[in-house]
Amino acid sequence: MSRLDSFIRRLEAQRACLDFAARLIQGLEGDVLELGLGNGRTYDHLRQLFPDRNIYVCERSIAAHPDCVPPAGLLLLGEMLDTLRCARMLTDRVVLAHLDPGTGDLAASHALAAELTPLITPLLRPGGILVSEPAIAGDGLSPIALPAGVLPGRYHLYRRVSSQLST
Amino acid sequence: MSRLDSFIRRLEAQRACLDFAARLIQGLEGDVLELGLGNGRTYDHLRQLFPDRNIYVCERSIAAHPDCVPPAGLLLLGEMLDTLRCARMLTDRVVLAHLDPGTGDLAASHALAAELTPLITPLLRPGGILVSEPAIAGDGLSPIALPAGVLPGRYHLYRRVSSQLST
Repeated sequence: MSRLDSFIRRLEAQRACLDFAARLIQGLEGDVLELGLGNGRTYDHLRQLFPDRNIYVCERSIAAHPDCVPPAGLLLLGEMLDTLRCARMLTDRVVLAHLDPGTGDLAASHALAAELTPLITPLLRPGGILVSEPAIAGDGLSPIALPAGVLPGRYHLYRRVSSQLST
Repeated sequence: MSRLDSFIRRLEAQRACLDFAARLIQGLEGDVLELGLGNGRTYDHLRQLFPDRNIYVCERSIAAHPDCVPPAGLLLLGEMLDTLRCARMLTDRVVLAHLDPGTGDLAASHALAAELTPLITPLLRPGGILVSEPAIAGDGLSPIALPAGVLPGRYHLYRRVSSQLST
């Protein structure tokens, strides 16, 4: 399998997981959180999935296509560790969060995810979904089955199962 | 359709066209030419398709994954317009060339393709294939049908039909 093959497979898994998570949270009121804007492709997909929800976006510095820049009021600009610590207005508000550092550096992705997870979890509503690549281990998060067509380990879905962490 | 959808569709079309072109040139002796290395994903795919052919790569400056850097002898380093003008050793040698500036800027892609096409065509053997996004119009190139699953206009295939340009 070439790098082109595995890249296509990863993007297809990402899209399938986001579409699936969108259905899971259909009846749940709340906001969406994109952890990293990048070129804005995934943000654009979230915008189409959730035309009626606030989509908050964490990003260090904006390098996205001009069409894909979030409104200033929904942009958490700065280092993710700092902005998430200050995002108390989102506590127990987020129904879907998406984390995909996509650096290609597996060890760095895991280290970042380990640092961010304790900050993301309290923002999720009970029943809210975290869609992530890489895999995550965190209190209050329970892995859920992937949608059809996505092989285990290719992408990851977690449901917030307890609200004890948000106090 | 989101930008994520259209990006996945474009990568799938690229892969389908390269795989199809590889079958078309199966019996034809010669080299492969990748016009732009980028992150090396497509180059890696070409390497897997053509383990026994020389794959020449044009690139201004190397920014690919270290695993995807071509051997020095096959790297045409510099501005493509300059390196292609000097690539006379490839005249009538190339059985598959791939052009995909992928800048997202359609006008710039077309302008670059228009400049490069007269330099690429003489390098192609008669019967050789140019796989391209954007569309190209050039003497000695004849559009050929896309593989199943790739809609017209999504990606482009041309066959070198005359060797008159290589003199």
